[in-house]
Amino acid sequence: MSGVDYGFLSPVWAGGTSAQLAGDAQFIEAMLAVELAWVQVQAENGLCSTEDFGAVQAVCDIQRYDLSQLAAKTPDGANALIPLLGMMRSLLAADGAPASAGTALHRGATSQDIIDTALMLLATRSMDAISALLQTTAQGLARVAAEHRDTVCIARSLTQHALPTTFGYKAACWLTAIMAAAKHLDQVRGQLPLQFGGAVGTLASLEQHLASRTETGATTAQLAKELAGLLNLKNPSTPWHSNRLPILQAGSALGSAIAALGTFGADVLTASRPEIGEITEPREAGKGGSSAMPQKQNPVHSVLLRSAALNAPGHVATLFTAAGTAVDERPDGAWHAEWPALRELLRLGLGSSEHAAVLATGMTINTEALTRNLKLGGDAVLSERLATVLAPVIDGGKPAIQKLVLESITEGTSLRQLLRAQLDSQQVSDEQLTELLDPAGYLGSAQRFTDNVLAEFSAWKESWQSLR
Amino acid sequence: MSGVDYGFLSPVWAGGTSAQLAGDAQFIEAMLAVELAWVQVQAENGLCSTEDFGAVQAVCDIQRYDLSQLAAKTPDGANALIPLLGMMRSLLAADGAPASAGTALHRGATSQDIIDTALMLLATRSMDAISALLQTTAQGLARVAAEHRDTVCIARSLTQHALPTTFGYKAACWLTAIMAAAKHLDQVRGQLPLQFGGAVGTLASLEQHLASRTETGATTAQLAKELAGLLNLKNPSTPWHSNRLPILQAGSALGSAIAALGTFGADVLTASRPEIGEITEPREAGKGGSSAMPQKQNPVHSVLLRSAALNAPGHVATLFTAAGTAVDERPDGAWHAEWPALRELLRLGLGSSEHAAVLATGMTINTEALTRNLKLGGDAVLSERLATVLAPVIDGGKPAIQKLVLESITEGTSLRQLLRAQLDSQQVSDEQLTELLDPAGYLGSAQRFTDNVLAEFSAWKESWQSLR
Amino acid sequence: MSGVDYGFLSPVWAGGTSAQLAGDAQFIEAMLAVELAWVQVQAENGLCSTEDFGAVQAVCDIQRYDLSQLAAKTPDGANALIPLLGMMRSLLAADGAPASAGTALHRGATSQDIIDTALMLLATRSMDAISALLQTTAQGLARVAAEHRDTVCIARSLTQHALPTTFGYKAACWLTAIMAAAKHLDQVRGQLPLQFGGAVGTLASLEQHLASRTETGATTAQLAKELAGLLNLKNPSTPWHSNRLPILQAGSALGSAIAALGTFGADVLTASRPEIGEITEPREAGKGGSSAMPQKQNPVHSVLLRSAALNAPGHVATLFTAAGTAVDERPDGAWHAEWPALRELLRLGLGSSEHAAVLATGMTINTEALTRNLKLGGDAVLSERLATVLAPVIDGGKPAIQKLVLESITEGTSLRQLLRAQLDSQQVSDEQLTELLDPAGYLGSAQRFTDNVLAEFSAWKESWQSLR
Amino acid sequence: MSGVDYGFLSPVWAGGTSAQLAGDAQFIEAMLAVELAWVQVQAENGLCSTEDFGAVQAVCDIQRYDLSQLAAKTPDGANALIPLLGMMRSLLAADGAPASAGTALHRGATSQDIIDTALMLLATRSMDAISALLQTTAQGLARVAAEHRDTVCIARSLTQHALPTTFGYKAACWLTAIMAAAKHLDQVRGQLPLQFGGAVGTLASLEQHLASRTETGATTAQLAKELAGLLNLKNPSTPWHSNRLPILQAGSALGSAIAALGTFGADVLTASRPEIGEITEPREAGKGGSSAMPQKQNPVHSVLLRSAALNAPGHVATLFTAAGTAVDERPDGAWHAEWPALRELLRLGLGSSEHAAVLATGMTINTEALTRNLKLGGDAVLSERLATVLAPVIDGGKPAIQKLVLESITEGTSLRQLLRAQLDSQQVSDEQLTELLDPAGYLGSAQRFTDNVLAEFSAWKESWQSLR
Repeated sequence: MSGVDYGFLSPVWAGGTSAQLAGDAQFIEAMLAVELAWVQVQAENGLCSTEDFGAVQAVCDIQRYDLSQLAAKTPDGANALIPLLGMMRSLLAADGAPASAGTALHRGATSQDIIDTALMLLATRSMDAISALLQTTAQGLARVAAEHRDTVCIARSLTQHALPTTFGYKAACWLTAIMAAAKHLDQVRGQLPLQFGGAVGTLASLEQHLASRTETGATTAQLAKELAGLLNLKNPSTPWHSNRLPILQAGSALGSAIAALGTFGADVLTASRPEIGEITEPREAGKGGSSAMPQKQNPVHSVLLRSAALNAPGHVATLFTAAGTAVDERPDGAWHAEWPALRELLRLGLGSSEHAAVLATGMTINTEALTRNLKLGGDAVLSERLATVLAPVIDGGKPAIQKLVLESITEGTSLRQLLRAQLDSQQVSDEQLTELLDPAGYLGSAQRFTDNVLAEFSAWKESWQSLR
Repeated sequence: MSGVDYGFLSPVWAGGTSAQLAGDAQFIEAMLAVELAWVQVQAENGLCSTEDFGAVQAVCDIQRYDLSQLAAKTPDGANALIPLLGMMRSLLAADGAPASAGTALHRGATSQDIIDTALMLLATRSMDAISALLQTTAQGLARVAAEHRDTVCIARSLTQHALPTTFGYKAACWLTAIMAAAKHLDQVRGQLPLQFGGAVGTLASLEQHLASRTETGATTAQLAKELAGLLNLKNPSTPWHSNRLPILQAGSALGSAIAALGTFGADVLTASRPEIGEITEPREAGKGGSSAMPQKQNPVHSVLLRSAALNAPGHVATLFTAAGTAVDERPDGAWHAEWPALRELLRLGLGSSEHAAVLATGMTINTEALTRNLKLGGDAVLSERLATVLAPVIDGGKPAIQKLVLESITEGTSLRQLLRAQLDSQQVSDEQLTELLDPAGYLGSAQRFTDNVLAEFSAWKESWQSLR
Repeated sequence: MSGVDYGFLSPVWAGGTSAQLAGDAQFIEAMLAVELAWVQVQAENGLCSTEDFGAVQAVCDIQRYDLSQLAAKTPDGANALIPLLGMMRSLLAADGAPASAGTALHRGATSQDIIDTALMLLATRSMDAISALLQTTAQGLARVAAEHRDTVCIARSLTQHALPTTFGYKAACWLTAIMAAAKHLDQVRGQLPLQFGGAVGTLASLEQHLASRTETGATTAQLAKELAGLLNLKNPSTPWHSNRLPILQAGSALGSAIAALGTFGADVLTASRPEIGEITEPREAGKGGSSAMPQKQNPVHSVLLRSAALNAPGHVATLFTAAGTAVDERPDGAWHAEWPALRELLRLGLGSSEHAAVLATGMTINTEALTRNLKLGGDAVLSERLATVLAPVIDGGKPAIQKLVLESITEGTSLRQLLRAQLDSQQVSDEQLTELLDPAGYLGSAQRFTDNVLAEFSAWKESWQSLR
Repeated sequence: MSGVDYGFLSPVWAGGTSAQLAGDAQFIEAMLAVELAWVQVQAENGLCSTEDFGAVQAVCDIQRYDLSQLAAKTPDGANALIPLLGMMRSLLAADGAPASAGTALHRGATSQDIIDTALMLLATRSMDAISALLQTTAQGLARVAAEHRDTVCIARSLTQHALPTTFGYKAACWLTAIMAAAKHLDQVRGQLPLQFGGAVGTLASLEQHLASRTETGATTAQLAKELAGLLNLKNPSTPWHSNRLPILQAGSALGSAIAALGTFGADVLTASRPEIGEITEPREAGKGGSSAMPQKQNPVHSVLLRSAALNAPGHVATLFTAAGTAVDERPDGAWHAEWPALRELLRLGLGSSEHAAVLATGMTINTEALTRNLKLGGDAVLSERLATVLAPVIDGGKPAIQKLVLESITEGTSLRQLLRAQLDSQQVSDEQLTELLDPAGYLGSAQRFTDNVLAEFSAWKESWQSLR
């Protein structure tokens, strides 16, 4: 079918179920939902009849629209609402709806009201789904953090082995970022506002109409409040037609979530390298394999997390550029530039949280590899500790330790042996030396920090479980 | 229809005919075309039979594929080629094709070969279309530049009136940028390379196969050359699996064209403001109007040009980020991040050049508005000239002139009168003063520069007409 | 002086006093402040002597460092802290400080602790300054909104005249966005965290040291808390060495503020165009003038606001890319990429809020121009109202009104006259028609929304005044 | 020293010698050079005296300017040229220069002429230096490619081991991209244009002056040509004040070079991981070390290459946004936004090519690690080959091979043994099996492609050596 897209070039979300929450049909449905809610509010306030509402409801069924035809008319007014409204009116006429239904439809509203609000609906639904997927991801990581709370492994800095840490703490660090991103997303989601201002944000046309319907007692303030309530959006104290901060909030929160997942994915990619081998992605039949090279199992989920993390910043930047160049009561292009950027961030968020949930709950931690890599650098991995502890007792102090470490690396001699030769057993007993060279004894606050994160996770989990 | 996109949130290209050149179906068709071309080259070199070729040709018909089903399988291997190949093989089996057709299909190739090359096909076709649309745009602007070569109007700097210029020169400046962008695009288009390297860029599998088919005399070098020729792509001296400069070239050229059109659109937007009114967009029935405000005619084409110019840079940045973080013989996410970015640049290029062509060939230049605006600041618009010419003769030199200019602005007195009062008629005659205060006499090289641009345009036009 | 920068290519903040808060010297001072605070905490907890503290304090004076020499050594370890620490130790030695001062200095810390924390200090100081400047800006806009609460003017959509609004409401819309951005900035500023984790985020070295100093009763948790308190930063529950969300929060908040100011600037730029002339930037001696063209007064402040709004998104994107590609316990380049991007956002924020404060408190609103532009389109500006009110009474309904509006535009006939001719005076009296055609009668909720914003501003103002 | 920057937050170029080519002082010097060259052209054409030229030359000495004072005045006119010109005139007066020197200075020019042209000078000088550094880098890589033309190692795809390749081919792939980027940079550098158009691109003031000096026979066209020649810039057929494509060309070329180096750096980072260990960065005394962890040697050069690759795309995007939103004869902020972005790209290019040159010429290739990693996956690395060669002879064809490969991985059994058990020695002899399982026999065209690249490199090297 020509002229439509399936997502073939966006593997992060293509074929994913949740990404459909932000699809084109869902956007049209959201616009229909906004128009319908507005007529419902009018009906509830005596501004139109329930018959009018019924007539409009009958045309608010996406099945009745030929979306290809709608797309063909989209460029005429540079948005899809204008032709949709035309098609809605044609259907009303075809249905023999009362003229008053047509007047109630879109009364006092402008295309920006419907499009901005529909995008907010898409955003709330997508963010709810992302939030749930991030919770699943977090649960997976919390389990790993708890299970591997005391699993000693190597910590790396600028790609190099630095000191021992625990694998649980690594998982806790991913969890911290993802939890923070999820909380931020929830907070932003709860603030997504209704847009309702009429042609230039003054609601003049609606006010005019209400002036002729004083018997209803309806006010624009009250109607807007009810409309927001019906759509489960925040009712802002003023329209935001030229104030694009709500879009920036949404975009930044989505970008942060995608970035937090990107860090997780980047670490899994490193850990999946055959030479490192610390993590194996969940193997699902038919996924990530290569028919030509059956030995090869690609870390598909983390590849896609990384791809999302590389794609998102461009869209975030577009939203900031659009907001910063907006003019007048409706911007001359900056507004239009927001749409594909925000929507793609929703999809990248949906797609990457879907992959992250599978990954976090299904990945295998290879403890032998963790141990093998920890031992790779020998005792030198504890050089920082040795310097701290032995500098006061060894001849030559800290520099002497550093020299021995380098000698052990260059010569391939055991650092323990070199130390033993320099220190008599009264200074440091064999037992003490063994203890000193045990990575498990040099974990600092790794476990405490892990516990902190797990406690924060538990509290958070309770908060979202209590909401269900 | 759920799960597919129509472009409702991308009004720059939604509903446009040319944007379909870079659609999802076209991408699948391009992948089929690459697979087919490769079997054809094999057939021509005795590596498979013409029967094999026919069998493969029979399955290279996009109508035979359920694209929704294909999309559902896309995330499994993080690309669409893997499931497409599976479906092709199923169809070959269903068609009762010889096993040898299945072995010839995709022989020695890897998914990156097919995807990268298919994107290059999409790019060449899209760029050809953009190029033609830019030529139409350029012709429109050249006509305006020629017609208004001597139409005097105001030039603006940092939003303020600065000096007189000609409208033809303004058009020539737009033309210069668009012409440069088009030439650059053509040059890049001619360099878009075939990707053909097998799993890791060594063509090892194909070499292995050829070793068993020495009777054919086929070499990988020769086969690649023929494949490139068949697809009308450049045959590079080495695969570019980890060298993403071709993608950067394409992205930069597209971004430049969109930016050049953005400048044009931005100036039309300013000129369309009712207070300025120098340009009117072509009015087409049903386009750009507002039913609520019939007096309002939106400059839809330039709004969309601007929106494209705001959207494109994020995608350009993504391509540079992806190229700069590519690793290994196939990048772990950076490669995937390129796809949607490059494709969207193609579409933004197609959409904006389509709008620009309509705009450049149909816009109205309102000469009365040009004159009205030119006169808005009175004689002060020539203050630079007055300072140059009269400084040597007036008492107090340049500062005296500046003082008179400011006095004329603050007091609302005619600058001519003020000058007349300061200069006796022997210093400057009435006639000379009139001449000095004629904006048409202070155009500098505006017309010469316009002629330069038009001459360059003519030469360019001949070059592309000779190619047709 | 070669090798140093003055900001010549960054006119948004060059030469501004507040931008120096985020200068290179201030970054070095902040690093010295962090090192010193850490020694102070140690001294207060008996981990070093007050003499040690005094010795370190003596070398924490930026005047004692040759910054050019420090810069020359910066690339060696890819950061400035490593050579700074070396220079500090040399000075300690030269000062004859006790060896214990040297051991206390930087004890258990890593360069990331110092650099991240120093950047947070720079951010808090800069954000405080930006916040104050945004408050000044907001006050200026609130005054304009109040003064022009009832000043009728034209509202524009997609560059075209749409409906009447009030200038106060325009100012209130800028104020809403700037106020939201300022509140968000304050919130983020209050959450900027201390970084304190040692080489890999475990504080292992410090724990080791404390194990030998149990008599002090000091714990890493307590010490970190005190350090955060001393530096007036948040004490996070875990180090954020690999969790870059705090950086994204800071970057997004700064970017949002710059974007909100960009919208303000963009509208001022439009309003400053001579043909529109609704706003004049404050004229300060020697600023924005052109010696060659004395009649020309450039809207320098809004030009710079726009330039900041165009510059910031690239830096925001860099932060998201860096966060999303971070790996290991210290990222291999992504961390380094954050520094210039975050710092430049601080400076753009400082520079643009400085310009905005001058602009908002000093700009002139030209009410004659507002009136002139409002009248430019004649009665047609009320076509929406006419359609709503007269459709029920006129023959032909809404389409008839639309036809008259278009006729009045094309023929240049007064819309009032055309209406009069179509409606008898019993349908609509002359008086009613006059009333209908009065823009001041079609302002909808503009004043109510303005009042909402001003009320929100008052509450906000009280909150920050109570803090002073 | 407060108020100046040293680069502490930009470790990619901080402290580097070449980055000073694009420093602030160099920008001021470039502006002085442009002003001086213009007076020289005038002197050579009889438009001013050699005495005038001498007087101007005397003030074109950067040592005579207080740059801090200049910076303080920069925001007044939103650029540094305006106050610089004021200071130049003051010095002329102080020097007792003839008034005619003052009139010749900047005659007919505008600040955009000087700033744009000065930036082009900075760009040409920086690009020349980058070009030379890329040549050094390329030489280093060519040497590695040649030396390791036949060194077999593992090729990786999506982080996983895929097939054998040669290390020489890896180096050749880096070389291809870097060579392409360098050639593109040279081409763009040769096209960087003079900007010379006067206040609005018409050269009206200069034309006016020449009209009074017809005896000199000077024309604007001729003078511009001479000026371009003197500055070694291209003389464009028309000013490019509103056509920003030259900036986009420069930015894209720089961004491409930085991205090509980023790919190189990213691969070195992976290869530097202790578990992989294929490449060691050159160790220089005092660089990349950690005093706390002496065993740790950070791959500083590649960390910085990566950091540059992450920083550059944001600046590239800014240039595209600025170009696409430019308006009028001088843009109202978009022009200013270009400056820091272009300059930072120059510096990132200088810094990263400097690091790349050190890295490419000094890195150590660890052949034992290459061999160890190649063997890590056992015979399975040749599964593609086995499938191709043995499918026709083994029972069950290709799927049977795949099954054995997976069995060998899961069970840990030797693939050779499993194959031997399935194939009798008449189908495949022991010798044949050994040959089949030799990675060196499955390199495909790796060496041929390497030779292609080296041949291209040689031709390129000759071209730049002939220019010296």
